[in-house]
Formats: sequence, C-alpha cells, structure tokens
Amino acid sequence: RIDGNRLWDSLMRMARIGPGVAGGNNRQTLTDADAEGRALFRQWCEDAGMTMGLDRMGNMFMRHEGAEPDLDPVYIGSHLDTQPTGGKFDGVLGVLSGLEVVRAIRDMGIRTRRPIVVVNWTNEEGARFAPAMLASGVYAGVLTEDYANSREDAEGKRFGDELDRIGWRGSEDVGGRPMHAMFEYHIEQGPILEAEGRQIGVVTHGQGLWWLQVTLTGKDAHTGSTPMNMRVNAGLGMARIIEAVHQIAMDHQPDAVGAVGQANVWPNSRNVIPGKAVFTIDFRSPDLGKLTSMRARLEAEAPQIAAELGLGIEIEPVGHFDPVTFDPGLVKVVRGAAERLGYSHMNIVSGAGHDACWINRVAPTVMIMCPCVGGLSHNEAEEISPEWAAAGADVLLHSVLEVAEV
Amino acid sequence: RIDGNRLWDSLMRMARIGPGVAGGNNRQTLTDADAEGRALFRQWCEDAGMTMGLDRMGNMFMRHEGAEPDLDPVYIGSHLDTQPTGGKFDGVLGVLSGLEVVRAIRDMGIRTRRPIVVVNWTNEEGARFAPAMLASGVYAGVLTEDYANSREDAEGKRFGDELDRIGWRGSEDVGGRPMHAMFEYHIEQGPILEAEGRQIGVVTHGQGLWWLQVTLTGKDAHTGSTPMNMRVNAGLGMARIIEAVHQIAMDHQPDAVGAVGQANVWPNSRNVIPGKAVFTIDFRSPDLGKLTSMRARLEAEAPQIAAELGLGIEIEPVGHFDPVTFDPGLVKVVRGAAERLGYSHMNIVSGAGHDACWINRVAPTVMIMCPCVGGLSHNEAEEISPEWAAAGADVLLHSVLEVAEV
Ligand SMILES: NC(=O)NCCC(=O)O
Ligand SMILES: NC(=O)NCCC(=O)O
Repeated sequence: RIDGNRLWDSLMRMARIGPGVAGGNNRQTLTDADAEGRALFRQWCEDAGMTMGLDRMGNMFMRHEGAEPDLDPVYIGSHLDTQPTGGKFDGVLGVLSGLEVVRAIRDMGIRTRRPIVVVNWTNEEGARFAPAMLASGVYAGVLTEDYANSREDAEGKRFGDELDRIGWRGSEDVGGRPMHAMFEYHIEQGPILEAEGRQIGVVTHGQGLWWLQVTLTGKDAHTGSTPMNMRVNAGLGMARIIEAVHQIAMDHQPDAVGAVGQANVWPNSRNVIPGKAVFTIDFRSPDLGKLTSMRARLEAEAPQIAAELGLGIEIEPVGHFDPVTFDPGLVKVVRGAAERLGYSHMNIVSGAGHDACWINRVAPTVMIMCPCVGGLSHNEAEEISPEWAAAGADVLLHSVLEVAEV
Repeated sequence: RIDGNRLWDSLMRMARIGPGVAGGNNRQTLTDADAEGRALFRQWCEDAGMTMGLDRMGNMFMRHEGAEPDLDPVYIGSHLDTQPTGGKFDGVLGVLSGLEVVRAIRDMGIRTRRPIVVVNWTNEEGARFAPAMLASGVYAGVLTEDYANSREDAEGKRFGDELDRIGWRGSEDVGGRPMHAMFEYHIEQGPILEAEGRQIGVVTHGQGLWWLQVTLTGKDAHTGSTPMNMRVNAGLGMARIIEAVHQIAMDHQPDAVGAVGQANVWPNSRNVIPGKAVFTIDFRSPDLGKLTSMRARLEAEAPQIAAELGLGIEIEPVGHFDPVTFDPGLVKVVRGAAERLGYSHMNIVSGAGHDACWINRVAPTVMIMCPCVGGLSHNEAEEISPEWAAAGADVLLHSVLEVAEV
C-alpha cells in the first residue's frame, strides 16, 4: 500500500503554492506560481531518484528506471495547473499519486521490469489559454505546436511567450515517446461516487465536448435617450443565448450538459447599451449523437436570436473532443486491483475532460477516480478525505505494478 | 452671434486629450487625462480674463465679472468627463460653449450687469464612479461629500483619493453659491430633433432614473461533471433578469426605457459554472408612476427568478432621481431666443440625466439641446455638425444675455 500520510502531506505542501482567496488555489498555467509548483515537483522526483525529460510544450516526464530500461515505460500523468478559483486536488492528486507510487515502490524495494514515468501535462485546465488539455493534445497529434504557442490569454499574452518566460520550455520533440500504457488518477469532480457510497470509480468512458465562443456585435448607445425600438443590444442577445444553451441541454437530458462560463460585454458601463458581447459555451455528452445535436441546435438558434435583435454574430469553435472509450484491458486491470484491495467500486463515465482523453488516442489509457465532497470542483471549496485519496492511489499502485511487471 | 469656428476648434483641441480607440474619447473622470483637460480649460478661461473657484468636489467655477459684481451670477455648466468609449461632444459642448459665450461677449465689447460663471461639474458620466452627476448632486445637497468621496471604481479606487491624486480638489465649500439661473447646453443623445428636422430642443422636462445593482450568488462548479439538476448558475440568473428588465421596459411603452449596461460573472472561466454575477440595471421614464412601477416590478420578479434557480440575490440602488420640470420662465427665454434667431425648435424631454437635473433643485435651471447624428451617444462615433453646435451656442448666448441683463 502507498503511504497515505506522505501523499496527503505532499498535497498540502503543493497547495501552499499559488494560494487562492478562499482556501483553494490559483496556480494557473504558465504563471510564476506554476513555475514554482513545477520546481517543487521536480525536486521531489529527483529526491526519489527520478530523472527529467522536458518537451517543447513544457510537459514534464519524470522517469523512474526499470529493470529493463529498453522496455516501453508505463506512464502516470495528470496536471499541476489549476483554475483561477480552483481546488487543491483537481489534477494535483494524479501527479502526486504518481510520485507516491514511485516512492512506495522504492520503499518496498520492488523493481519493475518497465520504467515508470510520472507526467505533469501543461495547461490542462484551459482557463487561461483555451482549449483545455492543450499540451497533451499536441502530444497526441491532435493540435499543432504552432496553434498551441499562439493561443492568447485574456490580456493577449501568448502561450509560447509565457512558456519561455517562466523558463519551462524543453527541447524534446512533442509526442512519439514509446508508451506501454498511461494511467490518470483524478477526483471525480461530480457527485456520483459519493452518492453511491463507492470508494473507486473505474472509468470506462469520457464525455465528449464542444466549446464555442460567440461574439455578438450591436451598437453602443445611451441607455437613457435611445428609444427601445432603436436599440441593438448585444447584452440582451447574450442573455437570450445563455437561456437557449440551458434549454438545449435540458432538452437532451439525460447524459448532456450545457452552460456559459465566460460572459463579457463592452464597454461594460452602467449607462451604455452593450455594443458587443463575447461569451463561451460548453456542451458535453458521452453520446456523440447528442453532442452533435446540441451544437447543431445552438448554431441554428443563436443566429436567429441575433437576427431578431439586429445583431451581428460569429460562432467560433475553441475546443472539441469526441466521447472517449478507455482501453478495455486496462479497465479490467483497474477493476481487478480495486477488488483485490477490497475497495468498493463502480464503472463511471468521466464528466470532465482529462489529458487521458487525448493520450488514449496514442497509447492504451485508463482512468481511476475517487469521490469528492458534494461533487464540487472548479471551486476553491473542493474537498476529498485523506482516506479517499489513499484508496485511489493504492489502486493506482497495484494497477501500475501489474502492468509494469514486477 | 458666437464664433462657430472658434467653438469647433476648441472642441477638436479638447478631443485630442484622452483619445479613444475609434475616433472618440476616453477621458474618464479623475484620470490623468481628465486633469489635462481641466488644465487646458482653465488656461483658456484665464486667457479670456476669467478667474477660478474650485470646491472640495473638484467642481470648477470660471467667473467672468459683471458690471455689478454683487448681483447673483448667471451660470452655464456641463461636464468635461467622458464615457470609457465616449464621444467628443457629450458634456464638452456645453462647457466650451459657455466659454465661447464669454469670448463672444468680450469680442463684442458687451458688459452684462450680472457676472457669468462657466462650470465644469465633476463626474457627470458615472461610468467610473456611480452614480452619475455625483458632484452636482453634492452641490445640490442631494448627496453627501462623504458618500461621494467613498465611491469606488472597478479597481476599488476611491473617488476622494483619485480627486486628491490628480490635484483638483479645491477648498471651497460645496454648494450654496448665489445662483440667479443655470443654463446647460447639451447634445440631445437621442434621435428626435434630427428626425423632426429641428435645430434647437427647448428642454422642458427630464426623465427620472433608477439605477439598481444586482448581485446573484450561486455555486462555482465544473461545467462538465456537474449534473444539470445540481447547478446553481448565477450566469443563468443574470440572463433571465436581463430579459426581465427588457420586458418590463417594453410593457411600460411609450415613455420608458430599461437595459443592463454592466454585466460580470465570476470566476469567468469557460469550464466553471458562474458562482456569482454582478450587473447593473438602468430604468428611466419622464413619468414618475412608470418609473416607480418598473422598479417595483423588477424587485418582485428578480427575487422570484433567483429563488427558482436557488440563487441568493441582493438589489442595491446606486443612483436615482425623479423626473424633472425645468424652470418655466427660463424655458420661455430659451424659446424666445431660438425664435428671434430664426432657428427651428421644439419642446423636448431629456432622455439622459444631466447636472442641470440636480441644479434645478437649488436654482432656476433650463437646458438647450442640439441634434446628434442618428441619435447616437455614449459611442465613439457620436457626431454633430459645426452648424448644429453653433446654433445652440447662439441660443445660449442670447438667453444668457437676456438673463444676465446687458
Ligand atoms: N478535469 C478538468 O477539470 N479538466 C479541465 C477540462 C474540462 O473542462 O473538462
Ligand atoms: N448626459 C449623460 O449621458 N449623462 C450621464 C448620465 C446618464 O446616464 O444619463
């Protein structure tokens, strides 16, 4: 078994970097806090005898040598970056549990035939630079390096420039590492495991996603002296499309969600009718048909709403992946480990996107989940218990030992 | 008659200070650009032999002496501050036309019995610090100095601190100056004069206003893994209240308007359901009954919308004035001047709020309006013709000469 206290201590230590305002974290990708978190993780790994590979996307590959170094390694990966008002566990649990697996193996004096590589994938959250899972997407060949480097944050800073600035761009080519398997251990970020009273989620599938960015163009005008029938109100258009997104998701129940997370109007002044609105839509479903249908309905309805108000509209896709089916062989390995360890478990579909969703396209991949309190995530109040954290890390350890061959 | 070219040149010169991004101005109150604009205006006035009074709210009183200095002066006032994406004429036309009136009187060698004071009222726009017409409101005794000094901009900077910082706080008490009359000349900011083909609006009334700030509190949560029925989406609540504001205004047609100008959600991240939304509502009507009824309906409906979504709600009034009736005697003076000068004119109700609306409570007050292209204002593309500008300034000159007694 892994050392649950050591894992918890590492989680709490990492959470001191990039503290949030309400007990969580703001360690957004490619900030100074991200650099500090990376340095601490690297130090811990090197203290455990691991060596670093760093690619041109800043993905960190911390290698624990196997008895047979030429065999394809087993990977354990997730992310250390957080939302602007994120929790202490989303992503971090997976990376530090990978480290804990290596620490535990060393403590037990076990030698695996295959090397084990613990990965911190850059910019999983997509909060600062859309889309999410950017660097694992480049790794998997779905996105290009140029595309990634050119992504801009809200201040117009580019991903590539910020990666250089914090000093975490490596020289290694992105992608193409021999990879026997990849495991990602993550908090559920939803309410199901807790509600069902299970310790372990065996993740068989992942939801697909469409991210759309909508720009509405109206006419700035005085809120007092402009008659109602002369207004071209981009804020009103935004309001109607936010409602449409909600209705579309409700009409696709169950197994579908939709919301607007980012919403901005210009010039954002009390006595000016908004002349411009920019906002983002997030549709998800494990069912490709529903996912496609939600996007199609939005793309039919939103231009109608805009036309009725006299608004110009542009809809730009800024993130997409199809629903994912994880590797059936590895799913069995995870389920078997949970069973042997005596942890209650169930099959589950990942509601969130994860680096595993991209890596699954280039190597056999699977995910393990633990519950989180109230299903709450992307919130500073995100919480798990040390016991939940340890149970999943135990399943990760036993799964990795089986696949890396003791 | 005034010198239309000199007036236009002064307008264009002032517009070079705090340029916007699209041909207009961003000379928001108590910024460095505001300080620069004030200094230029002061210089011009002093060049015309005027002397400055400056009160503790930064209101600038530029005095042209009368033949009988002890008589109550005639005031001409408006504002030099602009919206963040404002036009070159909103407010500025009134202040610089006041200066032009004094310049013209000097050129003509006329002496009025009463002194003439040209005023730049601080923070008319209310864009940076709500409410609008803040310093004229303090002058009229409707708002307190402490309230004004404590108002905060979006970055949390206080009005009082910013006034000190730019060096334009005077020592004169705010309010109580002997005031025989006040004139405010302003662009219409609406489409009526242009549509009716009239050069001069004789402003008989002003709309009343309610500004409400709404805060909705929900729960930040993951857009992907949070089931639809567990969401407490503050952005969705905001969308529904924006729609309600629009419906309430439509149901009070004619003579009523309503819109949401400022709209913000937190944490404003693509994959986080907004846990908080803050936005502002602007209702206006020349009819006190309608104004009161719109606010009452919003205060009944918005909490219902919030409750249906499980959201907390707070509604804070951040600006208010009742509909205004300007001084009937001065209205006649303005109409008579327009007639004598041969300008086409009509009675009009001001759609926007103006410093004149507050000053009307402490002195006989009236407004003069000129058309603006397409009724567009609070937009960098705001436009008037030099002829329109000059016609209104002529009416101002003749009205002031009559009241200040040649
Ligand atoms: N796990 C996680 O929250 N990833 C961010 C991408 C997403 O929104 O699903
Ligand atoms: N004239 C003008 O735009 N004043 C600002 C206050 C208002 O919104 O009416």
